[in-house]
Amino acid sequence: MKFVKNDQAAVFALGGLGEIGKNTYAVQFQDEIIVIDAGIKFPEDDLLGIDYVIPDYSYLVKNADKIKGLFITHGHEDHIGGIPYLLKQVNMPVYGGKLALGLLRNKLEEHGLLRQTKMTVINEDDVIKFRKTSVSFIRTTHSIPDSYAVVVKTPPGNIVHTGDFKFDFTPVGEPANLTKMAEIGKEGVLCLLSDSTNAEVPNFTMSERKVGESIDEVFRKVDGRIIFATFASNIYRVQQVTDAAVKHGRKIAVFGRSMDNAINIGHELGYINAPKDTFIDAQTLNRLPANEVMILCTGSQGEPMAALSRIANGTHRQIQIQPGDTVVFSSNPIPGNNTSVNRIINLLFRAGAEVIYGPLNNIHTSGHGSQEEQKLMLRLIKPKYFMPIHGEYRMLKIHTHLAEDVGVPIENSFVMENGDVLALSSNDAQVAGRVPAGDVYIDGSGIGDIGNIVLRDRRILSEEGLVIVVVSVDKEANKIVSGPDLISRGFVYMRESGMMINEAQQMLNRHLKSSVQGKDTQWSELKNEISDVLGPYLFEKTKRRPMILPIVMEV
Amino acid sequence: MKFVKNDQAAVFALGGLGEIGKNTYAVQFQDEIIVIDAGIKFPEDDLLGIDYVIPDYSYLVKNADKIKGLFITHGHEDHIGGIPYLLKQVNMPVYGGKLALGLLRNKLEEHGLLRQTKMTVINEDDVIKFRKTSVSFIRTTHSIPDSYAVVVKTPPGNIVHTGDFKFDFTPVGEPANLTKMAEIGKEGVLCLLSDSTNAEVPNFTMSERKVGESIDEVFRKVDGRIIFATFASNIYRVQQVTDAAVKHGRKIAVFGRSMDNAINIGHELGYINAPKDTFIDAQTLNRLPANEVMILCTGSQGEPMAALSRIANGTHRQIQIQPGDTVVFSSNPIPGNNTSVNRIINLLFRAGAEVIYGPLNNIHTSGHGSQEEQKLMLRLIKPKYFMPIHGEYRMLKIHTHLAEDVGVPIENSFVMENGDVLALSSNDAQVAGRVPAGDVYIDGSGIGDIGNIVLRDRRILSEEGLVIVVVSVDKEANKIVSGPDLISRGFVYMRESGMMINEAQQMLNRHLKSSVQGKDTQWSELKNEISDVLGPYLFEKTKRRPMILPIVMEV
Repeated sequence: MKFVKNDQAAVFALGGLGEIGKNTYAVQFQDEIIVIDAGIKFPEDDLLGIDYVIPDYSYLVKNADKIKGLFITHGHEDHIGGIPYLLKQVNMPVYGGKLALGLLRNKLEEHGLLRQTKMTVINEDDVIKFRKTSVSFIRTTHSIPDSYAVVVKTPPGNIVHTGDFKFDFTPVGEPANLTKMAEIGKEGVLCLLSDSTNAEVPNFTMSERKVGESIDEVFRKVDGRIIFATFASNIYRVQQVTDAAVKHGRKIAVFGRSMDNAINIGHELGYINAPKDTFIDAQTLNRLPANEVMILCTGSQGEPMAALSRIANGTHRQIQIQPGDTVVFSSNPIPGNNTSVNRIINLLFRAGAEVIYGPLNNIHTSGHGSQEEQKLMLRLIKPKYFMPIHGEYRMLKIHTHLAEDVGVPIENSFVMENGDVLALSSNDAQVAGRVPAGDVYIDGSGIGDIGNIVLRDRRILSEEGLVIVVVSVDKEANKIVSGPDLISRGFVYMRESGMMINEAQQMLNRHLKSSVQGKDTQWSELKNEISDVLGPYLFEKTKRRPMILPIVMEV
Repeated sequence: MKFVKNDQAAVFALGGLGEIGKNTYAVQFQDEIIVIDAGIKFPEDDLLGIDYVIPDYSYLVKNADKIKGLFITHGHEDHIGGIPYLLKQVNMPVYGGKLALGLLRNKLEEHGLLRQTKMTVINEDDVIKFRKTSVSFIRTTHSIPDSYAVVVKTPPGNIVHTGDFKFDFTPVGEPANLTKMAEIGKEGVLCLLSDSTNAEVPNFTMSERKVGESIDEVFRKVDGRIIFATFASNIYRVQQVTDAAVKHGRKIAVFGRSMDNAINIGHELGYINAPKDTFIDAQTLNRLPANEVMILCTGSQGEPMAALSRIANGTHRQIQIQPGDTVVFSSNPIPGNNTSVNRIINLLFRAGAEVIYGPLNNIHTSGHGSQEEQKLMLRLIKPKYFMPIHGEYRMLKIHTHLAEDVGVPIENSFVMENGDVLALSSNDAQVAGRVPAGDVYIDGSGIGDIGNIVLRDRRILSEEGLVIVVVSVDKEANKIVSGPDLISRGFVYMRESGMMINEAQQMLNRHLKSSVQGKDTQWSELKNEISDVLGPYLFEKTKRRPMILPIVMEV
């Protein structure tokens, strides 16, 4: 990094700044690079047909020899989902908590990377030492067990990355290690990178324990079946609903692949505890009385293929909504999923179920700390410099104002973009340059083969459709031998717009005859002519601008 | 209506049940039909390229001779936007408040319908009498002036349609006429149709007056320019921000066509009052000091072409964000618009503006009453039967429980679907049959010419793209004379996937040669063969399933 001085540490993100997703951070000191997380992002609506987005890893690929390891803060998709794609491009040892590595193992297996990857389980007290830097961990609370903040010691100073966190003083699992945070704060922290997700939310995030009480209340009141939908990875929530089921004498039938998977891993690793006969299959479910069973399933975000959507649509093979059913959404729709979640709720009501959803029921809580928790972190860590991470731009910005309130001067806070490199000396910090950090789209098995041209075409096709004009020409005789034929898709229903299509065809025919017959025509001109004649005609008739695709065949 | 008895009144909706949008209701007694509102709906994301949705008006067209008139409750798009499309199919006299008709006039002019349409301004005390039925009005409060509930007197009893309402006891305009509601309640109401939008929201909706106080506070605190975005049709809000501007010595520059339009109409009709020199143009705006101006604009829902989006993107011809600017979102994103509103907020922060948004600032309030207001309406009107309207299914359902709480037995409440007909005698109510009430899509100038096939094609094209295979064949000689050529759009970037495309072409070539040459081939079989060979090949290579469009040209 030529723009970083030899005594400076460089901190940068390939993803996670200005967005919630594809978190991928790095700390570099001279020839040692510590990578922290490698997540995916789910695409926004305008990325038509794209499955995931990952960052451009080219800086890491180019500097493969310097990479000491990838350190995982926790096992959520937006922190581990990109790892297979990263490891395909550059191999590196992976360090993470027991659960994160458990979840990662499945992914690596699917991608055929399990064998070649060296994975090391870290515990809270481990210190991983390299020649010039070292990495240690601080336990945090979040909506998945085994969540850690990462401390990178570098010669100019300590750099702390919080991972995703909240301060839950009555958590379901282990509490955050406040003591260790205070200690590192006392030792001195050069720069803090801290989770900004809830920077707009005042106060303190509700404890997971409180959600447990609300769940228990539902189980006390409801007589019929309970259908409980939540994030599969929220093992604490799964444990709490399991506890409620056991306490109130209900057996649990699990539906949805990721829920199955999470429960299996949680079971194996000792995060989910229940009497042996708690879990039942679909046959047993349908044999037992309604008040002795519950269904635990995926689909709380309205995902169209998940178990809950299929139950709501009436297309689930094993579960139909029956009178007396109560469906619980133990989740909060992320903004882009509002419409689909609402659709499912309406379908469930229509099918006759009671539905419990929304913040008034205290049936869900965020995994991220609100403003007071973000300030508590800053007060404990007492960083000299501050870099808000994991958030849209406005959240990062607001986070710097919170930091200001608790004593970090605003000029010591850095709201950066993906790719910006912060160069840190013991007494100075500057945005000093950039590394590549663009978006890479994954569609099917293709990584990065979909670019802006393809997306632009998809957008036009999706809104206006397509009209193809095919003409065969005899080049030697300068004669049209077949066509022009018009074919459309996504434009109008041809059978009902036959007259317009015929008229267009005749008009094109006249035009092309007069410009082709007997002349030495350039075929590229012919194509332009087709578009120029047909476009305005169709717009006049329909006020739509379909993509026009002229195909000239030479025979 | 053969399924409704001669002494029964029929009440039904063509739109507005199970959705928020395209509100279109009718009350029929024998040969008299009263139509109430005719709105549009903005399409959800899966209706690719569709501009608006209106209901199927065929029942009204068939019974044109019975229609007495169209009565408008208020001037919002989801209540008046469909009127031009309705009037094109069946002419009828239109009755509405001064502002609603003012807004409608523009629409009818655009559609060339102004001359032929008889419009009558109604006042609160008017009674429009027909032979067997009559229509009167009750003033309500909503987020637009001149909002009315409609009372239809029929021989079996009074039917009350609330329109959209809240109970704002300290409104900016006229208060709701509680007395008249109580009177009609005392006289007796057979059936109430009531706005369900906020049936999930506890308590009472905040007064518009309170929003005025928050606006005033912003103006007291801010030194730089204020850019204020809100719904153009919310004339009260526009008046309040105008008052604040006048009080704090700021001139107002207006941007956005619908805002211009609303202010002109509001001015003309006396709903917007301000000293003559309050409004300035863009030149004057850029000449005056920052603390003496404000910008009032459209785009509070993140609409990509609206003034605020262009300001945020830096593509507005006259306005650039400058340090010290404060942008106020005096609005709440409707669920589908969350993502685009967030994007604009981030862009504005990035450009250096302060942004005031979100419910914590009390800078916006809903136009719809919450649970206590819905109960107040029910307590005043005291209907025998109840039909929740204007809401998604869950809202309608919850509204019936609220009605139960205030004395309407649950069996007297009717959660209906668009098209369901409620047959009402003085002592009985039954869902008695159906009229057509499907969705009709408007795309460009086409009404109803886009159906499910076109939408399905658009969806496939948008997610997976398209591969066209063109082959010219000499039918007589049973010979391929040109092609197969592959052309794709929205699938892969051809230049970078050249090898795959070449390989596919060669493979197709081999296949087609062996099945065409010298044989008496059916061309339809040839098309199937192209799809059958190419589809699996492309899926194997890319894990995508583009639309495959084989074109066989005979020469």
